[in-house]
Amino acid sequence: MCGIFGIYAPGRDVARLTFFGLYALQHRGQEAAGIATADGKRAYIHKNLGLVSQVFNETNLAPLEGYLAIGQTRYSTTGGVHQRNAQPYLIETLLGPLGIAHNGNLTNAVGLRQMLLEHGVGLASTSDTELMTQILAAPSDTWVGSGWEKVDDGWINRICALMQIAQGAYSVTMLTSNAIYAFRDPHGLRPLSIGKLKEGYVVASESCALSTIGAEYVRYVEPGEIVRINGHGLTSFKGIERQKNALCSFEYVYFARPDSFMDGQVIHKVRQNMGRKLAQESPVDADLVVGVPDSATPAAIGYAQESGIPFSEGLTKNRYIGRTFIQPDDTLRQQSITLKYNALTSNLEGKRVVLIDDSIVRGNTAGPLVQLLREGGAVQVHMRVSSPPVRHPCFMGVDMATYRELIANNFDTPEICAKIGADSLEYLSLKGMIDAIREAVQMDNTYCTACFSGIYPIDIPEWLFATDRDKFMFEGALG
Amino acid sequence: MCGIFGIYAPGRDVARLTFFGLYALQHRGQEAAGIATADGKRAYIHKNLGLVSQVFNETNLAPLEGYLAIGQTRYSTTGGVHQRNAQPYLIETLLGPLGIAHNGNLTNAVGLRQMLLEHGVGLASTSDTELMTQILAAPSDTWVGSGWEKVDDGWINRICALMQIAQGAYSVTMLTSNAIYAFRDPHGLRPLSIGKLKEGYVVASESCALSTIGAEYVRYVEPGEIVRINGHGLTSFKGIERQKNALCSFEYVYFARPDSFMDGQVIHKVRQNMGRKLAQESPVDADLVVGVPDSATPAAIGYAQESGIPFSEGLTKNRYIGRTFIQPDDTLRQQSITLKYNALTSNLEGKRVVLIDDSIVRGNTAGPLVQLLREGGAVQVHMRVSSPPVRHPCFMGVDMATYRELIANNFDTPEICAKIGADSLEYLSLKGMIDAIREAVQMDNTYCTACFSGIYPIDIPEWLFATDRDKFMFEGALG
Amino acid sequence: MCGIFGIYAPGRDVARLTFFGLYALQHRGQEAAGIATADGKRAYIHKNLGLVSQVFNETNLAPLEGYLAIGQTRYSTTGGVHQRNAQPYLIETLLGPLGIAHNGNLTNAVGLRQMLLEHGVGLASTSDTELMTQILAAPSDTWVGSGWEKVDDGWINRICALMQIAQGAYSVTMLTSNAIYAFRDPHGLRPLSIGKLKEGYVVASESCALSTIGAEYVRYVEPGEIVRINGHGLTSFKGIERQKNALCSFEYVYFARPDSFMDGQVIHKVRQNMGRKLAQESPVDADLVVGVPDSATPAAIGYAQESGIPFSEGLTKNRYIGRTFIQPDDTLRQQSITLKYNALTSNLEGKRVVLIDDSIVRGNTAGPLVQLLREGGAVQVHMRVSSPPVRHPCFMGVDMATYRELIANNFDTPEICAKIGADSLEYLSLKGMIDAIREAVQMDNTYCTACFSGIYPIDIPEWLFATDRDKFMFEGALG
Amino acid sequence: MCGIFGIYAPGRDVARLTFFGLYALQHRGQEAAGIATADGKRAYIHKNLGLVSQVFNETNLAPLEGYLAIGQTRYSTTGGVHQRNAQPYLIETLLGPLGIAHNGNLTNAVGLRQMLLEHGVGLASTSDTELMTQILAAPSDTWVGSGWEKVDDGWINRICALMQIAQGAYSVTMLTSNAIYAFRDPHGLRPLSIGKLKEGYVVASESCALSTIGAEYVRYVEPGEIVRINGHGLTSFKGIERQKNALCSFEYVYFARPDSFMDGQVIHKVRQNMGRKLAQESPVDADLVVGVPDSATPAAIGYAQESGIPFSEGLTKNRYIGRTFIQPDDTLRQQSITLKYNALTSNLEGKRVVLIDDSIVRGNTAGPLVQLLREGGAVQVHMRVSSPPVRHPCFMGVDMATYRELIANNFDTPEICAKIGADSLEYLSLKGMIDAIREAVQMDNTYCTACFSGIYPIDIPEWLFATDRDKFMFEGALG
Repeated sequence: MCGIFGIYAPGRDVARLTFFGLYALQHRGQEAAGIATADGKRAYIHKNLGLVSQVFNETNLAPLEGYLAIGQTRYSTTGGVHQRNAQPYLIETLLGPLGIAHNGNLTNAVGLRQMLLEHGVGLASTSDTELMTQILAAPSDTWVGSGWEKVDDGWINRICALMQIAQGAYSVTMLTSNAIYAFRDPHGLRPLSIGKLKEGYVVASESCALSTIGAEYVRYVEPGEIVRINGHGLTSFKGIERQKNALCSFEYVYFARPDSFMDGQVIHKVRQNMGRKLAQESPVDADLVVGVPDSATPAAIGYAQESGIPFSEGLTKNRYIGRTFIQPDDTLRQQSITLKYNALTSNLEGKRVVLIDDSIVRGNTAGPLVQLLREGGAVQVHMRVSSPPVRHPCFMGVDMATYRELIANNFDTPEICAKIGADSLEYLSLKGMIDAIREAVQMDNTYCTACFSGIYPIDIPEWLFATDRDKFMFEGALG
Repeated sequence: MCGIFGIYAPGRDVARLTFFGLYALQHRGQEAAGIATADGKRAYIHKNLGLVSQVFNETNLAPLEGYLAIGQTRYSTTGGVHQRNAQPYLIETLLGPLGIAHNGNLTNAVGLRQMLLEHGVGLASTSDTELMTQILAAPSDTWVGSGWEKVDDGWINRICALMQIAQGAYSVTMLTSNAIYAFRDPHGLRPLSIGKLKEGYVVASESCALSTIGAEYVRYVEPGEIVRINGHGLTSFKGIERQKNALCSFEYVYFARPDSFMDGQVIHKVRQNMGRKLAQESPVDADLVVGVPDSATPAAIGYAQESGIPFSEGLTKNRYIGRTFIQPDDTLRQQSITLKYNALTSNLEGKRVVLIDDSIVRGNTAGPLVQLLREGGAVQVHMRVSSPPVRHPCFMGVDMATYRELIANNFDTPEICAKIGADSLEYLSLKGMIDAIREAVQMDNTYCTACFSGIYPIDIPEWLFATDRDKFMFEGALG
Repeated sequence: MCGIFGIYAPGRDVARLTFFGLYALQHRGQEAAGIATADGKRAYIHKNLGLVSQVFNETNLAPLEGYLAIGQTRYSTTGGVHQRNAQPYLIETLLGPLGIAHNGNLTNAVGLRQMLLEHGVGLASTSDTELMTQILAAPSDTWVGSGWEKVDDGWINRICALMQIAQGAYSVTMLTSNAIYAFRDPHGLRPLSIGKLKEGYVVASESCALSTIGAEYVRYVEPGEIVRINGHGLTSFKGIERQKNALCSFEYVYFARPDSFMDGQVIHKVRQNMGRKLAQESPVDADLVVGVPDSATPAAIGYAQESGIPFSEGLTKNRYIGRTFIQPDDTLRQQSITLKYNALTSNLEGKRVVLIDDSIVRGNTAGPLVQLLREGGAVQVHMRVSSPPVRHPCFMGVDMATYRELIANNFDTPEICAKIGADSLEYLSLKGMIDAIREAVQMDNTYCTACFSGIYPIDIPEWLFATDRDKFMFEGALG
Repeated sequence: MCGIFGIYAPGRDVARLTFFGLYALQHRGQEAAGIATADGKRAYIHKNLGLVSQVFNETNLAPLEGYLAIGQTRYSTTGGVHQRNAQPYLIETLLGPLGIAHNGNLTNAVGLRQMLLEHGVGLASTSDTELMTQILAAPSDTWVGSGWEKVDDGWINRICALMQIAQGAYSVTMLTSNAIYAFRDPHGLRPLSIGKLKEGYVVASESCALSTIGAEYVRYVEPGEIVRINGHGLTSFKGIERQKNALCSFEYVYFARPDSFMDGQVIHKVRQNMGRKLAQESPVDADLVVGVPDSATPAAIGYAQESGIPFSEGLTKNRYIGRTFIQPDDTLRQQSITLKYNALTSNLEGKRVVLIDDSIVRGNTAGPLVQLLREGGAVQVHMRVSSPPVRHPCFMGVDMATYRELIANNFDTPEICAKIGADSLEYLSLKGMIDAIREAVQMDNTYCTACFSGIYPIDIPEWLFATDRDKFMFEGALG
């Protein structure tokens, strides 16, 4: 999970606009942030560990000159938190500067890595984004042979070659000296939207970053498509044959910001719809519907609307989360849920409560939240989850990589209900979830549901399933 | 507006508990934070500018030894942001170390300052907290004469003398080598709660800080009361004759965290009640009730419940607020509301919307929010405010100090409605607000409503009204 | 040991000049630095822990406006390294802002502290400079009674009162809203020079700070004198009856920068003279004279000139000292002298070497240096010290406060010679040292030689001698 | 100019030893510092801008595990100060991790860069060290063809290939997972010494870094030699045919620390010898010999010894140089020499002074120093320089790259004498300098004297001479 951004807008301060775009994408990754710009000749970069607002100040933003930019805000799915893994990656090539910001995960990274090392390219990080950058640094012949039918543009041709050999999920914004490129894997696993400014174009993981900087939503980048934005405007190229749509359904469930568009519909509406479906599938006789703040609020509103049970807030969340490095003492650790959440007792006392959460992945917080509601006066707590049980790991860029950590892989629903101490527990069905999305967006699209269904849209090497998280990761020589 | 905290708990890591207590009070001030501790003999302190999570790390927390502590998180109502104004203040006196954390504002600070300077005390800051600290450093005779009837305890006696001469709003936690004291002005203008831990007692501006660290709410500190917590447990002293209750009604409207108790009732409930009253007083024919996130959500829920109009979310707010020092460019500035809020168009399209906000003070955001809803598809926007118009400045610790800045002092409601571009605008009546509080808390208490009514519970010097903000401030010699 | 500075120079950037003045005084203290300025009405300050070049940058220097300034660079003789002990101290008083920068040590600090606490003044630090500041904050009557004959100026009068009650060593620069004051204890224990700029006057601990900023040396501040610099120019006042001169002889031996003037003579010359005297008193048959860099080089040159034995360098010192917080491992620790010094073997091989050091206080480095020279090829090492044995603690501002730590108090010269492994060891006699100074400066002045002779120019309370370092310090309540 | 270091010492904390080694090499570069370690399997790194003592602390040193390490302290001869140019460079290759620390300058960097880009390698910096790293990442066949006679070791073979194609000056320490390599260009333009510890071996730019950590000097790395240190001890390989010795003579004149060995002799001795030769060649009737501190002191001592004129100090230098970012105001700028140097008037008054400096490159400080001596009382100032006039640029790693900036290229000696205001000016002759070195080291070696003589030991491309500094630099696409 990462947020990526790209902009081509002569006359505007593109680094500043990228800053505010990343600021709107901060929920997609809080580990590191970076911006690269170009002025037609040279490229400039600043990146570091931290939140967007921590990484950038007026002093380090000032040298990022030019009229086009890319940026990234990073969530580390794998490996340690190292500065060398911060994005964008920026290198010089025979065709000039090349910058890459990437959201996704390549399932054949180990093979691509070996290919590059064998070609004699030394690699400075363990990131699959560096792999993409170095693959693009060489002529397409290097990797896909000379029989390759070339498109009439050096970079387009190289991107096509990359798309031939890269497997997995990738949405990418790319910067050269004088153009922005954006491309997406053939299944469209990770989102990527296009927006229009008076002065040019913007590309971003989510539409909320477009509206934040005043750009108008145009469309999304098609799966397999390459978009180029330069002085000639926006041009579309076919990068690779489009496959069956497989946009990550977890974007609808949890990741995306509620005000973002996907497939033409605002996420908030889709989540409300999931809550409605959940109410239809798993009704319960209760007095109050409460969501886990803030991500489950839309589904809770939908559940309340459909069931007729009143909605209210039952839990508060400390807004000033930020990162604290202070550890609770032993006593506090036992009640650590209260450091983040408190119960609104006045709303709960004597009530039979439906508690809505958007998903249960590892199952660490559901139990303490149920207990918090009971201590706050709830006489019954019925947990309803607006997505199906997460039973399978994701290898397409979401941080749930091994079977072992997934509670629904290890226990069935009644067992989980007992573990979390709820009076009842029900999940939205897989069909219900997909119907909820399709009805909301009024499209017949298909989606990746691998983490729920175990049906993967792309081939996953067998060893990935068999292995543990640490093994899953590239076991690099750089500690 | 500040958050204060105090704890006496032998056997616990009191600095760490104070950290988490301040973390829960972060909404009361984001400018500076500090903690002072004592071990029966010596006192220790660390404070700095920044959020609680930025000011403290394990390294600077470690030397804060002892079994009692106070802390503060500061909102700067006046003057510049200077490290020297960070609290607590810690000094040595003839009776040993003395630390003070203060929430409130002394209306006779100028006179007290002169009194101290004339006594020959040099002052290192412009803070009224330093004044309190230096007044407490001297025997009570120094300030109130020898006829003063002394209580049998050096510190209690000094606090009594301070309460004789200090005018205005103050809730204070105080630390000596071996005891915590807490006291409150005779009107109880600012809140202060007491909680119980297995190992001792806790005092905090709001009860949410008690529950965060696992303490049980006991009661609040009475107006005019002094509470001492030491090896003999908790002892109550009369500090000064109690006056008519005047807890700040704006705490109910906006300041306090929704999960905090005040007068025995959770704030969230009171705010829902305000929304209900508002629906009764100012109904409107509409399709959707929407609150300005997050502070107006409880009132919006109440309005929806009472009116029967469905509640949903209509605006999202970027959670990763933090402080950014990057300035928007000119184009962005014109649409700066989108940097913080976005409209949820799917919920708004074609709808007649009731927009609930908790209050309108300066009136800078209401207009852009109304416009955002319209652009998001709302066909009508009826603004309802769950408190009366703010027409008078506050001199008791809230950052609205001059008539000039208050929009409702300069324009009447129809004018404001026109300025913000709403289809209609109504405020909750003063009586409605007080009734909403009283019904919720089931008490007949009185409250300070000065900013709404112009009726001040304490004497305000004439010149304060006449003056502008900068003049209101102490014009210190320290730049 | 500290460096202090003051400047009155309308039309110049006084904060910047103070910066460069402190930069030249950096050798007098590396723990903390600070600058306070005033513009005729208000005062401004910035101070922090660290070297002058670390504490200040253009951003924090810019707000230090005005036409007069004081500054300090601090060496911590006592207590921990706390930000609250950084100087200058700046407070507001009835007469306006008051800033103090101090070099010295008050021997009756405990009594003055008690006096202030009893008057009801809370103290925020353990520094004797804060005591001076608070004493000056009150009218002189407060401390010395009403019979006191007043001088016709509020501040002069207060300084006179302070000089009546303060005992010990003090050289002070003081800032008010529109004037700089400088004063010195009646014995003149610590140095203080006056310089002239085209635009005004400068005061500094050493003349090297005057020449660094282009000021011309005028004279030193007389013992007991108060100098005021304001719009009327420089005026001299008698602060207290002058006592027998007792400028610290260790300034000549070690502290002062070799290019500074004292008593009209450059320090370098005095040190060469000490080397000459040492050669007369303690000749030795040898091939080479070598000084411990850099402080003993002048004395080594003098010894070589007088003895006719060639001078050369025999040891190098790593210039990039700075503070490193990396600890050597056990093996490195055994040879830790090589982290700082290396031998110049080509100069040493087969030579009988005279090693000159300026002083031996604790005796930790002399032994390793002798061994380093032997390993570097020296066949004999004769140590000669250009000052007498340090046998007595200093209570006047130099960091050698207890008998226990002084090697010459615990061992006689032959024992020390054996411990350090030298072929011979001789010190300059007390008479030789004083003669060396007097001949160089061509004056018959008297000096403080307490650390060598045990004869203290001021009364030292008996308990100070009896006590250990930690007890010597004020045992404050602030940890 | 840079300092490099390498160590193989199982059982020791190699990162810590590297820290202290770099600390001793700090004079060779103050811009950036870094350390890479390896533990037989993985490699670890930390590097940043700043002094060695600023870059490292116990926290970032701790993760640098292993039993072998390399390090660098960097002087930026070219381009801006960018973090991406900090060394060592560490990458992963098919043979495992590879780290490089480099001192020197490749004269065919532009060509090598093009070669790598054409091979499809993207480059992240403008440093020639990255080029070396990427060249070593590929099998030797990639660059030198398959006819190449291979040595029986993957890395040795690759280093041989690199040495075939790299032109210019390079001394390199290199790290793999389990071995340290050190190699030097065929002329030995930059120094590189080998030392022995009980637990292994050390390699460093100068021997002072060996003695600092307690290692015994063994020998230097031969020009064209590759040294490998691993579990089998130290092994020597021929990397490339050795050419005529051309160790940089400026190392003797200025760069190297005076206590370092080169060609078996301590630098200090060589510099004294230069001073003696200078006295023989250019005597003068004078009263005092004074050196510019600290670098010219050895030559001044030699001049004094040979001439019989007494040596003393005549100038002091502020030790606390560090970097200050505070700019002097206009008045201070005119006298900026006093911010760094002061005259010791007592030694100078009425004297005819011989001022010794080690070299004159740009000629900015000589004039102000002569004037300072005159103002300090010198009646005559005769400048003597212990090296010949610098008339030609250096392309082998020293920061004097263009004809334009060299004063002796633009003016003859009498003109320079007039410009600096000396009574006379003489340089050491080229023959005198070489003789001084040869006599001191008692060897018949040859040296690079290009900057003095214009005779370059290697072919320099014509365009390099014709171009200006900015053009000389690689004009990279990364701004």
